[in-house]
Amino acid sequence: MLKCDSVLISDTSLYASGVPTINYGLRGLCYMEVKLTGPNRDLHSGSFGGGVANPINELAKIISKLVDKNGKITIPNFYKNVKKLSAKERENYKKLRFSDRQLEKELDVKELQGENGYTTIERLSGRPTLDCNGIYGGFTEEGAKTVLPSKATAKISMRLVPDQNPKIIAKEFAKHVKSLAPRSVKVEVKDLHGGLPIVMSLDDYAIKAAAKSVSKAFGKKTVYTREGGSIPIVVDFANQLKAPVVLMGLGLDTDNIHSPNEHFDLKSFELGILSSAYFLKEFSKQ
Amino acid sequence: MLKCDSVLISDTSLYASGVPTINYGLRGLCYMEVKLTGPNRDLHSGSFGGGVANPINELAKIISKLVDKNGKITIPNFYKNVKKLSAKERENYKKLRFSDRQLEKELDVKELQGENGYTTIERLSGRPTLDCNGIYGGFTEEGAKTVLPSKATAKISMRLVPDQNPKIIAKEFAKHVKSLAPRSVKVEVKDLHGGLPIVMSLDDYAIKAAAKSVSKAFGKKTVYTREGGSIPIVVDFANQLKAPVVLMGLGLDTDNIHSPNEHFDLKSFELGILSSAYFLKEFSKQ
Repeated sequence: MLKCDSVLISDTSLYASGVPTINYGLRGLCYMEVKLTGPNRDLHSGSFGGGVANPINELAKIISKLVDKNGKITIPNFYKNVKKLSAKERENYKKLRFSDRQLEKELDVKELQGENGYTTIERLSGRPTLDCNGIYGGFTEEGAKTVLPSKATAKISMRLVPDQNPKIIAKEFAKHVKSLAPRSVKVEVKDLHGGLPIVMSLDDYAIKAAAKSVSKAFGKKTVYTREGGSIPIVVDFANQLKAPVVLMGLGLDTDNIHSPNEHFDLKSFELGILSSAYFLKEFSKQ
Repeated sequence: MLKCDSVLISDTSLYASGVPTINYGLRGLCYMEVKLTGPNRDLHSGSFGGGVANPINELAKIISKLVDKNGKITIPNFYKNVKKLSAKERENYKKLRFSDRQLEKELDVKELQGENGYTTIERLSGRPTLDCNGIYGGFTEEGAKTVLPSKATAKISMRLVPDQNPKIIAKEFAKHVKSLAPRSVKVEVKDLHGGLPIVMSLDDYAIKAAAKSVSKAFGKKTVYTREGGSIPIVVDFANQLKAPVVLMGLGLDTDNIHSPNEHFDLKSFELGILSSAYFLKEFSKQ
């Protein structure tokens, strides 16, 4: 019933305005929550400071040990199933001429940061990462309160690449975090949610047909990108339908996605219609 | 106008329920706030994770470096003006027969933690400390949000002992924290407030009179303690009035100070009235 030749999705973005783009990969996700409990209640930091483990300080120590000074994630077996970027992929990344300076300027940072041995664009989509998405504990309002808190919590997520499995990574993460905590605190680790990563073969006929179609519509050479985010249903489509999934996205970084005044460029709309028509024609030649 | 013979304050605690206690020292305080800014806005951790410094991860790294594995604070010159505990004081501490096991049980922790080379009771009142009192950044509600936050903030305070000066410590702290931060983040350090530490002479007549009075009221030998917390006005009283300050406290560790259901024991209330009356009589004999 669900038989099909290919799945065509337009939910990703153009590499830049006017540049025809085929996205051939998505990162997966493993999203964890770590809660540390020190004393069984909030304490006065004067009366108890110096005698008892502080869960915020201990949580900070654990987090600081999850990524080493070379930007490598320290969880055992974390990289075990990571497929290396092929020479061809690294060549494709290079062709994108990603500008570190421009991103620094856009985000107002003096310096980018990440895993040694990879370019920024490779780190943003082709390599796994670990980020704290949230942290809280103790007194978090304006001013000062001398509390030695009972609890501290961090939300920590990892973006994954093929062939990492979020379920396995979650287990390794939990084990590692527990091994890093001192006896003076209790540790709870929760697996909040996850999704598989995927990379499609550039040699697939559907991908080739799509690349040709967008190139024809835009009147430019197509570029190939991998997306740093996740679209879990893409993995389901690929696995359940056993069909190639083509990500022929038309969005722009300036579309305010998921933000007020979200919009879609009319030029993208027209070029998208054209690209889809060309794709149907091109793909039917197979 | 402000001339007086002695200052009597009941704002400290009994060493244990039913044990008459004279407190002869208070720790000072240096309370700081550290704010790290990475990118100029919250980012999608999929699209940007791996390319840019995460202020929570960086803040964790800084916090983890403030105290070393021996429980020593790493801020340069932090211990420079710390008066060593005298042999007599360490003897007094020993007499208190402080039970680590009991505190562990009371706080439901497997193990206490603190500076190497000192007993728990010494660490709780006679030695300086560093504690995170609060931390926050990114997504702090229920569930998961894949944000790579722009900012992360920690409230970090240090309890001080004579002759440490909170103004000097605040400057050293700010310098140290800034030196630990990478170029990829901006650092703001604020001095939220501070107070001087103080230790009174046990040979003062007012202290002796108070010790006699509480002993009489409670019907037991008085013990001498130092308080881990801070009462900044005590230092002002001592310095401005040039009069001895007596800390004849009546609180209990079980009072849940600065916690929900804070309370005061009625027996302490009655013995406190008695102790104060005896003190007025005893002190007037001078």
